[in-house]
Amino acid sequence: MLLIWKVLKRIAFTQTTVAKINMYVSLPHHKKGTHMSRFLEVLNEYARPLTPACIGTVAREIKERLEAEEAHLEITFTYFIEKHAPVTAARGLMDYQVTFRATANGVTDFVMGVRAPAASLCPCSKEISRYGAHNQRCEIEAAVRFDGDLWIEDLVTILESAASSPVYAVLKRPDEKYVTEAAFDNPKFVEDIVRDLAVSLEKHPQIRSYSISSENFESIHSHNAYAQISRVIRA
Amino acid sequence: MLLIWKVLKRIAFTQTTVAKINMYVSLPHHKKGTHMSRFLEVLNEYARPLTPACIGTVAREIKERLEAEEAHLEITFTYFIEKHAPVTAARGLMDYQVTFRATANGVTDFVMGVRAPAASLCPCSKEISRYGAHNQRCEIEAAVRFDGDLWIEDLVTILESAASSPVYAVLKRPDEKYVTEAAFDNPKFVEDIVRDLAVSLEKHPQIRSYSISSENFESIHSHNAYAQISRVIRA
Amino acid sequence: MLLIWKVLKRIAFTQTTVAKINMYVSLPHHKKGTHMSRFLEVLNEYARPLTPACIGTVAREIKERLEAEEAHLEITFTYFIEKHAPVTAARGLMDYQVTFRATANGVTDFVMGVRAPAASLCPCSKEISRYGAHNQRCEIEAAVRFDGDLWIEDLVTILESAASSPVYAVLKRPDEKYVTEAAFDNPKFVEDIVRDLAVSLEKHPQIRSYSISSENFESIHSHNAYAQISRVIRA
Amino acid sequence: MLLIWKVLKRIAFTQTTVAKINMYVSLPHHKKGTHMSRFLEVLNEYARPLTPACIGTVAREIKERLEAEEAHLEITFTYFIEKHAPVTAARGLMDYQVTFRATANGVTDFVMGVRAPAASLCPCSKEISRYGAHNQRCEIEAAVRFDGDLWIEDLVTILESAASSPVYAVLKRPDEKYVTEAAFDNPKFVEDIVRDLAVSLEKHPQIRSYSISSENFESIHSHNAYAQISRVIRA
Repeated sequence: MLLIWKVLKRIAFTQTTVAKINMYVSLPHHKKGTHMSRFLEVLNEYARPLTPACIGTVAREIKERLEAEEAHLEITFTYFIEKHAPVTAARGLMDYQVTFRATANGVTDFVMGVRAPAASLCPCSKEISRYGAHNQRCEIEAAVRFDGDLWIEDLVTILESAASSPVYAVLKRPDEKYVTEAAFDNPKFVEDIVRDLAVSLEKHPQIRSYSISSENFESIHSHNAYAQISRVIRA
Repeated sequence: MLLIWKVLKRIAFTQTTVAKINMYVSLPHHKKGTHMSRFLEVLNEYARPLTPACIGTVAREIKERLEAEEAHLEITFTYFIEKHAPVTAARGLMDYQVTFRATANGVTDFVMGVRAPAASLCPCSKEISRYGAHNQRCEIEAAVRFDGDLWIEDLVTILESAASSPVYAVLKRPDEKYVTEAAFDNPKFVEDIVRDLAVSLEKHPQIRSYSISSENFESIHSHNAYAQISRVIRA
Repeated sequence: MLLIWKVLKRIAFTQTTVAKINMYVSLPHHKKGTHMSRFLEVLNEYARPLTPACIGTVAREIKERLEAEEAHLEITFTYFIEKHAPVTAARGLMDYQVTFRATANGVTDFVMGVRAPAASLCPCSKEISRYGAHNQRCEIEAAVRFDGDLWIEDLVTILESAASSPVYAVLKRPDEKYVTEAAFDNPKFVEDIVRDLAVSLEKHPQIRSYSISSENFESIHSHNAYAQISRVIRA
Repeated sequence: MLLIWKVLKRIAFTQTTVAKINMYVSLPHHKKGTHMSRFLEVLNEYARPLTPACIGTVAREIKERLEAEEAHLEITFTYFIEKHAPVTAARGLMDYQVTFRATANGVTDFVMGVRAPAASLCPCSKEISRYGAHNQRCEIEAAVRFDGDLWIEDLVTILESAASSPVYAVLKRPDEKYVTEAAFDNPKFVEDIVRDLAVSLEKHPQIRSYSISSENFESIHSHNAYAQISRVIRA
């Protein structure tokens, strides 16, 4: 199901976007089926700025109204962040896929997932070639549990820092030169990207668990390279 | 609808693959609907090695049996070609998306489409940077009308020649060095790729018309670059 | 490329949504490539409520700034319409895929496309069975050229009227009974849907050309049924 | 990565199809990255009829050759089964998505997954309406661990039996009447489908664990209905 949603932004209030919503409840033994229209009633009551806290409330409310032992809510949306090109500071909007997942079953569990495109440059190709090095777009994903509040913007920054270089919506010539050289100076295997991302998340005081991955759309192969790590730091 | 199909190969007889099939007829004014099961009857009779000539025959047969003025048949399948790495000659299977389209309406029109992944390296990035150059996977497509017989293998070779470098299924270290340097020596904008491909097709004695494109999954941008040209050389 | 866009609504001002944007220019012979960042500059200047007129202006501006003979702009977005259930009037948000396409090459051409889900019920199945009739969701699309202003809401209503029944976001039990019976009373082949839609568009005083289709996800077959008609009523 | 694969069939030897292959190894701490070309070498040696036993062998071989503690192999392919229409026995090919997953880490774990389209008819709509009942295509999935040998054909039969009716590739008029009435006589909520499927799998002597789901493409709503159950019967 698609809905218009407002998401709380780090700066400047809220952002309106389009969200895809999945809702599930565990069905008690004595019931044949669930009341699908109640899902929508709850959702309509809570269609206000989207925060982790609010998602948890919606999940608990669904659990109550549908008399379920467990309710699960999954909201995926495109989130836009204004980004400045590294040299000219030209502004452009980058879009990221964000997922909020809440489970209510007595306690409330919340997971935030972010997917960011980035650039990766192959260390092996750089090392063995007289000039050049193959590089490509990759997609880095992280799904995290955390203490307190964590902004989407902050998680995106951590993800992008793990790549050879971030990617941008608008780049002028001096920016393109900068990004090309920066990626060449910072070669990374797909395994390096997730390993370095894991190191950043382990050091972050708020992160309690993470499941991270990178998929590299290899520019010289017809297949992709993929790496992933999952770890619970503390319960 | 999906079906198992055999396709005639340039070398070594046939290849078995899985095809997605779309079939359409123009409906005469006095008919409310078409007999969908007849489509399948015709198809089952002709499920033998797939050639342009055979596709034309199926389209004409559908036109007859469904009493239509025009029949249109579209078959899309994955086609595998064994490719040798450029230095070590290590063998690997590359997969290409191929489409055969036939229209029968008195005359029979046949179009063959091929999509091949390849590598493109940006001339601007190479020129302005002290070292390195951004490069990425691209997807090159060509849909052509032609005289006589044209092998899928031949069209794939023409497509791949238009890129900065072909991509491979298996590359060992000496191959990776070769491909990295070859792409660096042959930088191409997305516009260059389709322009050079057009030049090759214009020179080809059998090609009568072409519609070609390339989409580059830019490694330093969050958007893709795209170029396309269509031309009828002769009717 | 994805962007946040505001779209003019029939009622109550504007709607904010997320748009996917493709932009193309024809390249003059003496140019090697285009200035991709200029596309974004033009777009940023015009990121205001989205109307057919505004899209035409953006296309013309891109043509000027990129010194092209022709510019083409394609904007696809999810558009939400509040719909009331047929009996209880329970409110729910329906989402539709809308595409605005503008071509500027001296004159400006504008095409609006809308895709709406609906329900279709098979006349043959109803006729030959003692009870029941297979029915399924279908997707109806129309891309139209028109005189004056045409609201997305109005085109959606025309599309939905061609099906056995519209579909809804929220239906309570009396609504479900109503929709089930209404679809059973109004059986339609996929060919009927596009034929009836064509009749409506031919009668509409503003429509100048149409390209329409329906794809039915047949509930008793593993394949889909598809029909389409295109016609230019006047230039 | 795509490859041509042969799969062992219940009847008549093997079937050639196209497989998508994902391969993963856990990376030892002292290694920076993995040898991707070795994956392909192992695969090429074992490209023979595909059976659960063979997949396990490939996973163990990858674990050895890449000196990993754990190797994971995932093979997804289209599998065709000839099916006879229920009254006329007209023959048609149905296609199913099948996934083989093997993990080797000392012991070898094997999971077989099958996805089958089917028809579901809503009990509530049937009960409250004077005539008709909304029905739609659904997709039923099961991923199972089992003792001994289990044919894809057998798992497909179990899945299809849980729906209101199977779907078919070819249906003539008497078949369409039969299927329409059979579905009407056997109404099922999405929850009923997975519950009845769970009952069948619990009774099956070979099944050790299952993860099952159904997604119904509701013909009167714009959203889908979904249900799922996972259970380990014995280790």
